[in-house]
Amino acid sequence: MDFRMQPRTEAGQRFVGLAEVHAKEAAEHAERHDRDGTFPLEVFEAMKASGFLTATVPAEFGGFGMDSSYDLAVGLSRLGQGDGSTAIAANMHLVFGLIAARNLRRATGRGDEQEQAAMEGYLALLGSGAIGMANATEGGTDLLHPLVEATRVDDGWAINGRKIFGTLSPLADLFFVPIRARTNDDGWASGFAIVPRDTPGQEIRDNWDALGMRASGSHDVVYENCVVPSEFVTIGEPWGEWFEDFLVIGTVGNIGLIGSFVGIAESAHGIAVEMVRTRKKAPSGRKIAERSGIQHQVAESEADLATCRALVERVGRLLDHHALERPPAEVAMEELHEVHREFQCAKLVVNRRCIDIVDRSLTISGGAGYLSSNVLSRLYRDVRAGPFMQPLSPNETYEYIGKVALGLPPRLEG
Amino acid sequence: MDFRMQPRTEAGQRFVGLAEVHAKEAAEHAERHDRDGTFPLEVFEAMKASGFLTATVPAEFGGFGMDSSYDLAVGLSRLGQGDGSTAIAANMHLVFGLIAARNLRRATGRGDEQEQAAMEGYLALLGSGAIGMANATEGGTDLLHPLVEATRVDDGWAINGRKIFGTLSPLADLFFVPIRARTNDDGWASGFAIVPRDTPGQEIRDNWDALGMRASGSHDVVYENCVVPSEFVTIGEPWGEWFEDFLVIGTVGNIGLIGSFVGIAESAHGIAVEMVRTRKKAPSGRKIAERSGIQHQVAESEADLATCRALVERVGRLLDHHALERPPAEVAMEELHEVHREFQCAKLVVNRRCIDIVDRSLTISGGAGYLSSNVLSRLYRDVRAGPFMQPLSPNETYEYIGKVALGLPPRLEG
Amino acid sequence: MDFRMQPRTEAGQRFVGLAEVHAKEAAEHAERHDRDGTFPLEVFEAMKASGFLTATVPAEFGGFGMDSSYDLAVGLSRLGQGDGSTAIAANMHLVFGLIAARNLRRATGRGDEQEQAAMEGYLALLGSGAIGMANATEGGTDLLHPLVEATRVDDGWAINGRKIFGTLSPLADLFFVPIRARTNDDGWASGFAIVPRDTPGQEIRDNWDALGMRASGSHDVVYENCVVPSEFVTIGEPWGEWFEDFLVIGTVGNIGLIGSFVGIAESAHGIAVEMVRTRKKAPSGRKIAERSGIQHQVAESEADLATCRALVERVGRLLDHHALERPPAEVAMEELHEVHREFQCAKLVVNRRCIDIVDRSLTISGGAGYLSSNVLSRLYRDVRAGPFMQPLSPNETYEYIGKVALGLPPRLEG
Amino acid sequence: MDFRMQPRTEAGQRFVGLAEVHAKEAAEHAERHDRDGTFPLEVFEAMKASGFLTATVPAEFGGFGMDSSYDLAVGLSRLGQGDGSTAIAANMHLVFGLIAARNLRRATGRGDEQEQAAMEGYLALLGSGAIGMANATEGGTDLLHPLVEATRVDDGWAINGRKIFGTLSPLADLFFVPIRARTNDDGWASGFAIVPRDTPGQEIRDNWDALGMRASGSHDVVYENCVVPSEFVTIGEPWGEWFEDFLVIGTVGNIGLIGSFVGIAESAHGIAVEMVRTRKKAPSGRKIAERSGIQHQVAESEADLATCRALVERVGRLLDHHALERPPAEVAMEELHEVHREFQCAKLVVNRRCIDIVDRSLTISGGAGYLSSNVLSRLYRDVRAGPFMQPLSPNETYEYIGKVALGLPPRLEG
Repeated sequence: MDFRMQPRTEAGQRFVGLAEVHAKEAAEHAERHDRDGTFPLEVFEAMKASGFLTATVPAEFGGFGMDSSYDLAVGLSRLGQGDGSTAIAANMHLVFGLIAARNLRRATGRGDEQEQAAMEGYLALLGSGAIGMANATEGGTDLLHPLVEATRVDDGWAINGRKIFGTLSPLADLFFVPIRARTNDDGWASGFAIVPRDTPGQEIRDNWDALGMRASGSHDVVYENCVVPSEFVTIGEPWGEWFEDFLVIGTVGNIGLIGSFVGIAESAHGIAVEMVRTRKKAPSGRKIAERSGIQHQVAESEADLATCRALVERVGRLLDHHALERPPAEVAMEELHEVHREFQCAKLVVNRRCIDIVDRSLTISGGAGYLSSNVLSRLYRDVRAGPFMQPLSPNETYEYIGKVALGLPPRLEG
Repeated sequence: MDFRMQPRTEAGQRFVGLAEVHAKEAAEHAERHDRDGTFPLEVFEAMKASGFLTATVPAEFGGFGMDSSYDLAVGLSRLGQGDGSTAIAANMHLVFGLIAARNLRRATGRGDEQEQAAMEGYLALLGSGAIGMANATEGGTDLLHPLVEATRVDDGWAINGRKIFGTLSPLADLFFVPIRARTNDDGWASGFAIVPRDTPGQEIRDNWDALGMRASGSHDVVYENCVVPSEFVTIGEPWGEWFEDFLVIGTVGNIGLIGSFVGIAESAHGIAVEMVRTRKKAPSGRKIAERSGIQHQVAESEADLATCRALVERVGRLLDHHALERPPAEVAMEELHEVHREFQCAKLVVNRRCIDIVDRSLTISGGAGYLSSNVLSRLYRDVRAGPFMQPLSPNETYEYIGKVALGLPPRLEG
Repeated sequence: MDFRMQPRTEAGQRFVGLAEVHAKEAAEHAERHDRDGTFPLEVFEAMKASGFLTATVPAEFGGFGMDSSYDLAVGLSRLGQGDGSTAIAANMHLVFGLIAARNLRRATGRGDEQEQAAMEGYLALLGSGAIGMANATEGGTDLLHPLVEATRVDDGWAINGRKIFGTLSPLADLFFVPIRARTNDDGWASGFAIVPRDTPGQEIRDNWDALGMRASGSHDVVYENCVVPSEFVTIGEPWGEWFEDFLVIGTVGNIGLIGSFVGIAESAHGIAVEMVRTRKKAPSGRKIAERSGIQHQVAESEADLATCRALVERVGRLLDHHALERPPAEVAMEELHEVHREFQCAKLVVNRRCIDIVDRSLTISGGAGYLSSNVLSRLYRDVRAGPFMQPLSPNETYEYIGKVALGLPPRLEG
Repeated sequence: MDFRMQPRTEAGQRFVGLAEVHAKEAAEHAERHDRDGTFPLEVFEAMKASGFLTATVPAEFGGFGMDSSYDLAVGLSRLGQGDGSTAIAANMHLVFGLIAARNLRRATGRGDEQEQAAMEGYLALLGSGAIGMANATEGGTDLLHPLVEATRVDDGWAINGRKIFGTLSPLADLFFVPIRARTNDDGWASGFAIVPRDTPGQEIRDNWDALGMRASGSHDVVYENCVVPSEFVTIGEPWGEWFEDFLVIGTVGNIGLIGSFVGIAESAHGIAVEMVRTRKKAPSGRKIAERSGIQHQVAESEADLATCRALVERVGRLLDHHALERPPAEVAMEELHEVHREFQCAKLVVNRRCIDIVDRSLTISGGAGYLSSNVLSRLYRDVRAGPFMQPLSPNETYEYIGKVALGLPPRLEG
């Protein structure tokens, strides 16, 4: 029996079915890309060809119309069983369909025709194969306080600054870049710039070299007087303030990451179980699985896996309901914060439990998994990326969860 | 917003609604019954009067027709927010509706008219207000190896032996007593006897005196030449073997217990949060909630609560599907074992996390919760009962989970 | 072999030897005092008679001259094996010998004849059998910010306010009461008052009724215009500031508490091990100890016990060196904070691990330990008092440890 | 103040002083050797030149005469702060001085002149600079059941089989190889062969390529008709039985490994603390150290570090006493098992806590530590080797600890 997470929509089933196919392709190349730190372009080409990468785009714009962030997480968990780097890179793009479709619904609801047109254009681009990515993280600050600056120039806005951890940058066509810009009163406002690949002034550094997720292409991206047209820049909220889209992207846009890590853990546990079910050991020559110490470790991982799946299933249902299905106009910031709190709880526990599962798989492997030639050694490095994922690391998330739960303003120490 | 577990059927909503009412009644009397070790008869009278105790009986037999073990768990979590003892005692009875309805479906499917009639009779009894309870646990053995014996006598079977932890015994009308009986070849078979209250030879000892769950009436019940008619005894499987009904009762019949403990944890966390949101402390006079150390602890409990709810939601869905909705004839033992494994994973984690939540509530309370006058001190004692609940304690469950996960026969060391 | 903690001085050996004797006496009465919430006066009478309660008084003042806080912790761990309440109550008194002897050394070193005389007088009192106790904790504030006030009156100082958790109050002759007093500039200064028992205006409420440590006599003590002579009051540091004696008492005066909890854990583990080594269980009739699940749990407790003992041994060595053996004049506040940080680390881990050990003993007991008649159920309640012990609870200690480790001023959020 | 572990003998102080020097050298080359998987020969040359590698050889044979296994662990913790691979490789050799000196004492005590002479010869070799290593681990079995075989040939014994994880193999002069040999009754006996480097038939595979400890030279070593003279082979106990030397080497010979991992953890924590004490972060520009979330994480690591140090200090004292200082003739197997149990407890907790500390250092680093260029990413890989270290992994150690604690024969499932 298969107790893995299952999609709940028809489009999701299609997506998950393809994910399982692409997972196999990704697995084939994973070792090489990990060793060399190269991006699995061939896998992404296949995912383009199969339509997988348009799954979250509404059908009328050429996609599968998958509108469940939970189903996205399920599919990426399958893909993550093949290769974690591939899964998290795919997520960077796939979230845009969900978000843009929500924004379109919101604009329509509001009668905001300009936004409506913008979102339709954006979805049409995505539906026709354009690859988007968030290029959000910076060193020395948090997501609510981007330091990359947009300044008015004659023909639009000039972007300056450096982004890091730019997952999917080897492939992306559109970079979604959080920026800040001066306000009239000499303060700062937050906003976003959409930067098409190869806009002069954008340099993708090709410098990603990390402990794990080595095939994710998470390069630095430097912006130096990178000028984009005015309509590609949106200036919104006061710098540092939580705002609706941030909370939506922060949840709906990241549940796929958690899913990816569950896939890594499932893969590791499966390898360990298979190993002890087949290998025998002196002096008795019995299968290793028959030892009580092994059974205990396996049981702990089973409990952890059940926990991870349950949390993704629960928070996926909550996200789909509150952030996607409910009319955006009816969803207050407080509701989004409470849902975000639930997401942070899930993220915290799932990331930690997934690390524990992979760690335990190494233990169960009895030393074999520590060798570079054993895939467990890659999974151990990959899975550790989880807690770094946006938004909010373990350095910040307790404060956030605690404050929201206590009814305090969720303004974090900074 | 309310992130507690929610029922998924209409009958479940009715049940949960009543549970919330009865929880208040139970809470009113909880301190007294805890102190005196008395059974909350007045609460059970109210639950009889409201129909709450017939919730799991199919409508045609006079109940609500609630057929979801998950909804049962949700309702008992609400009841457990009022009083844990009341919730676990109610579970002992409520499970029989679910099980009997399943057995009736199975008998009908098989065309087993005798069993069909028996189950109809039993459900009619339950529907008319009879209170059932499992009287299963014994000292010095496990559930698969009952030592209480049934021996053939002229007018039926004589039951001899002692059961312990007989929760709900002050009220129950029908005692469902696992027994063993000699087989022709001088071996043992397992079976069950149904013993009506006050059958001569049954003595309810009125001796329950424990750390917590003091109002649950979990007395010893001694059987000494307690004779019941032949039709009240069923002899089934070889002694010590897993069998279908055992696995069904072991899951569907115990998820309500997990739910009860979630309720206890929710109650404790709520008390702690309320305390720090209202109390102020020198030197600053700020609310305690504003301290980062408190926020951290609250966040850990939020994560634990999310974990507990998610696991009950997930395993409830699995139990409802595999053990209740699927035609019994199609469900093989292997499937039941795998579902039971998932249940044991949930039980293991939920019990532990609930204990942690109540423990942390004590910490957050800053000493106040340690006083007898503070309800947290009762919750701390009550919640510790969780891991002892049947079937399988932490002494055994790792072995069970591990063996099932590894595809080994789930025969436990004994 | 005995891997428990062992004293390192000769006086310590004498103390520990007596502790083992008194532990047996305390164990005999423990159940009754726990049930009734009464103070074990007969045990304290025996400890007076044996000289045990003068152990920390220098020999020239009539005591054993035990000058090691580690040895104190070792002895109280033995006493705690008999009864936790007795051990923590004894600690409240025994610390004064250590502290007064240090203060005398410091006064002598400084040539402060007045302080020298005061300490000699105080030690003579202790040596002759007077029982001292700290009466420090208050609700709604922390130890650095006492709210009980001392105000100048004609014939000394009037004390007003309420102290809680006054462990040992049924017996104490001298109450050491942290107070605050107005300064000339209308601020507050911290200080201490020594209040002899039965000073008019002092009321010991006889109201201790808690989850555990029920025999510790930790009553509220109310001060209402309780007037003491001027020489019984010392006004020292600005209110809320850390100061030398606070840090010394906070460590040297509390390691005995940690020791007491180790004793409780040792006792619980011993009971559980004995139980499974002797009890047999169906169906095999083998000793429970032979089950792998039991062995695993026992191993976890062994590891926890080793951890607890190791931490007390290490921090005991550090405390003895830095806070007692080094000339007080050479020990800067920074050094005391770093030692206090190490103490807080030990306290944090030891308290948690001791709770885990007792919890696991319940698990190993298989339900038996949950019954009121089983001593494990008392130990489970007693051991939970640990994290509440002064100074610094888990709500505050992470902040303290973190700040000291990071070289930040250890001023806590308040 | 320096709360790291400190040596307790004079020779130990000399050893630790040198360790600090060599740690710096090792740190300089660590990144390169990690990347390339090469052995730090230049560091070992320096350690030879300084006499560091003869520290455990008695003075009369040309060494420092360091006879404390605890001091060995302290020194290796310092070396491990520079490079973990170097530290564990050095341990492989350094233990031989301790063991041989013990064996010499035992032989002298027994009046066993042959053994005495052998040990003197061996110590003379070590004193003159020979490098020894244990070449014990094999795949598919445990240490008590070596599969490598020694068979009688004309001119001695022929060794056949494969050893793995041969740490220090690039440098070792003498390989200490556990073997098995047929007994007269066609059973197996365990024993040891000493194989000088470059004995024909020994092939060091140069194939070590692992997740971490990449500079440890832990190559496979294959023995194919590798013939050594008769006097280089000792046949001892029945295959699979615990025996005295095994238990001594298993403890005294492995505490240095635990020490090495404590050094890795100390290094990681130090890097993380330094990072947050110096780096500032938007929006406030305050030092990262001032954030409460960071302080909490730092506090958890401080508590873990205190735990690790305390456990090594405690078990080091126990090992020195029971396994080195006490006359071997007086130490029964039961005593050695109990000491070994304490060692396994320490190993279990220290390895886990060290992994947690390095993991937390990554968290504190906020993503920076995940980059290959950051030394934390190497420490994260290195520290994971700990639980694999001999003897007994987490798959086996609970069973061992549990059985010894319960007074059962410590024969492990096999």
